[in-house]
Amino acid sequence: MNLRDLKWSAKEKKVAREAFDKAYKQEVRQIHKEVYEKVKSFREENDVWKLHDYLNGKRKEIDEKYDYRYSVLIYVFARLMSESFIREEDLEGLSQDKLLNIKGLLKI
Amino acid sequence: MNLRDLKWSAKEKKVAREAFDKAYKQEVRQIHKEVYEKVKSFREENDVWKLHDYLNGKRKEIDEKYDYRYSVLIYVFARLMSESFIREEDLEGLSQDKLLNIKGLLKI
Repeated sequence: MNLRDLKWSAKEKKVAREAFDKAYKQEVRQIHKEVYEKVKSFREENDVWKLHDYLNGKRKEIDEKYDYRYSVLIYVFARLMSESFIREEDLEGLSQDKLLNIKGLLKI
Repeated sequence: MNLRDLKWSAKEKKVAREAFDKAYKQEVRQIHKEVYEKVKSFREENDVWKLHDYLNGKRKEIDEKYDYRYSVLIYVFARLMSESFIREEDLEGLSQDKLLNIKGLLKI
């Protein structure tokens, strides 16, 4: 079956939404921390614009990455897992085939 | 004489450059302070993107404002003076007609 055509039960949708939101919060908090460190260590005027460049990049990255469409969610979860924003236990409750597909993508 | 056609002596160019750079540094430091205050008071994830929006706006504003072309410098100085980033003493050394033109623009 094509990964894009997987069916998601109501229970799975709840698990998925929670894992997704948790990962998003965690990643944005990490960005917040990095911003704070950067701001504290400003040395010259140009550092303000370097921070802006950093946020430009992060926002684009986050906007692209956090795509909550069931047709792509397996790929999103595999990526978030590879980046340690989602752990295996966060996805408990998803069907075995979904978990296997996510793990399969992780090996690529 | 058209303000765009004013002649700038070497001495005036030096005064202008110093006033311009000083204003720029002062304004960017003010932005830095505001960024620091914003970062310290982050409450939720979205605050990171609000900071990004703020920097988007400031960078556009600064890029447009700090235009060091002699053809527009009188206008730039009038604006920077109206915003208190340049003081009258910073422009000491410019010709009387330039100073009068800047002050004239300030009244508009």
